[in-house]
Amino acid sequence: MINQLVEKIKQTGAPIVAGLDPMLDYIPEQVQEKAFEEFGETLEGAAEAVWQFNKEIVDKIWDLIPAVKPQIAMYEQFGLPGLAAFKKTVDYCKEKGLIVIGDIKRGDIGSTSAAYAAGHIGRVQVGSKSYTPFDEDFITVNPYLGSDGVNPFLKVCREEKKGIFILVKTSNPSSGEFQDRLIDGRPLYELVGERVAAWGEEAMGDTYSYVGAVVGATYPEMGKTLRKIMPKAFILVPGYGAQGGKGKDLVPFFHEDGLGAIVNSSRGIIAAYRQEKYADFGAEQFGEASRAAVLDMVQDIRGALENR
Amino acid sequence: MINQLVEKIKQTGAPIVAGLDPMLDYIPEQVQEKAFEEFGETLEGAAEAVWQFNKEIVDKIWDLIPAVKPQIAMYEQFGLPGLAAFKKTVDYCKEKGLIVIGDIKRGDIGSTSAAYAAGHIGRVQVGSKSYTPFDEDFITVNPYLGSDGVNPFLKVCREEKKGIFILVKTSNPSSGEFQDRLIDGRPLYELVGERVAAWGEEAMGDTYSYVGAVVGATYPEMGKTLRKIMPKAFILVPGYGAQGGKGKDLVPFFHEDGLGAIVNSSRGIIAAYRQEKYADFGAEQFGEASRAAVLDMVQDIRGALENR
Repeated sequence: MINQLVEKIKQTGAPIVAGLDPMLDYIPEQVQEKAFEEFGETLEGAAEAVWQFNKEIVDKIWDLIPAVKPQIAMYEQFGLPGLAAFKKTVDYCKEKGLIVIGDIKRGDIGSTSAAYAAGHIGRVQVGSKSYTPFDEDFITVNPYLGSDGVNPFLKVCREEKKGIFILVKTSNPSSGEFQDRLIDGRPLYELVGERVAAWGEEAMGDTYSYVGAVVGATYPEMGKTLRKIMPKAFILVPGYGAQGGKGKDLVPFFHEDGLGAIVNSSRGIIAAYRQEKYADFGAEQFGEASRAAVLDMVQDIRGALENR
Repeated sequence: MINQLVEKIKQTGAPIVAGLDPMLDYIPEQVQEKAFEEFGETLEGAAEAVWQFNKEIVDKIWDLIPAVKPQIAMYEQFGLPGLAAFKKTVDYCKEKGLIVIGDIKRGDIGSTSAAYAAGHIGRVQVGSKSYTPFDEDFITVNPYLGSDGVNPFLKVCREEKKGIFILVKTSNPSSGEFQDRLIDGRPLYELVGERVAAWGEEAMGDTYSYVGAVVGATYPEMGKTLRKIMPKAFILVPGYGAQGGKGKDLVPFFHEDGLGAIVNSSRGIIAAYRQEKYADFGAEQFGEASRAAVLDMVQDIRGALENR
């Protein structure tokens, strides 16, 4: 799957992933109203609004980008109907040829991580049959429990040719509270980065490993160091746009050939219609506004990479 | 909810939580076969087997213990039907008067943690209505992202009088890989413990905080230190039994009055019928075997606390 991701980035020229993290708040009133007419102001109604919103955006941007990243929390908050909308979104995006990164940030002791790995990127056995329940292409993984919490994911990556992105340095303001603390003179995120590189050796694709890393756009200097520590890890970079990251901040995350990283934007794409810049589209044309935002983002990042 | 947990531990005399982490493998054949007859060898069939297995065990042990801890991964691995069985299990245990600790180990950047908090221990707004989707009493939380990933959970704890247990030192063999690394001469888990104590001050119950900690039974010396660092944090202690922890190892996690910790056993209780010790019950009487295992565990822990 990492080979396919690299291939699709080359095809589209867009090292970009659209974060499908729909808060109800982002969803235009007409979409919410229609869903509530059918299902009432219920969890089912919220899930339907989320799904219709996603579908419209995906229909307008699928040809421009290689991948989407649905954040499962935004679905899980609406309980079982919300998780059904997550699954529907994953399936629909895959039908459209998009690579799906499930942003699930799971991680636990070995047997439990094995269950998450089976449910999200692997197979689960039921009697004589086997199933692929959520069937994302990549997922994000939390490393706090160490190797035996990560190994079950590695095993499934090798078996299924799927991938993971391990949290190394997250984009949020307080990520430094633990991640930046010095151990033998070096920050924790560097040690995690070294482990990511080592884990990655056990699950290599053609050029990059099935094991990638999450490093926030908001910390470009750290991105530069981590790029060196994990040369074969693809870096998933959140924090562009709404969280403050800009095109030029992203350069250190990429290799010289313009590969090696993929930048996520969520709100900046899916709620573009609410920005002054795209206000002319209006709430009715929210999908078109998202398309314009993706095109602008491609230009911003390509420009920055060309002028590095 | 922390006050209720303390109260129920006093009532039952059992600082014990039963981990409802049903691998299919643990479920006796007659239960699986019956579920497969009705739903086929499908995810629905697996979910039904899990639910029937849980129900039988809960029916046999609910009066002995204060709480249960379903591990969501074991349900999530069976996709949407699995998660429906999780929800059914949570609801049923609450009907039985049990406190439910959702072992979900979530944690993300602020807005995303807020969505997890809403979905699992809080409320989500849909138009003019509000819902409590999963409605656990406590959940487990991963601290790797720092304060702004934890604060949304604290907020919901205060609003809803619910609780969280934050991962401090996990029970697995490689937990030391990052958690034990020295920062200014002290291991990371101690720094996390200090933060847990500080976060806890912001959400206090009567004697204990709504903010507890997870510390593995497999590390009693560290438990002793952490007990002192976080005097008002209830400690959820996994790793008893199958993972290697014994009654006498648990003493350091408790205060002198025998309160302050709650010990989890999963396999040791739910798959008791497969142990030589309880083999006489046979697979047909698996619920009775679980009951016997709980009674033995209560005796082991009480004995250890009385002889401290």
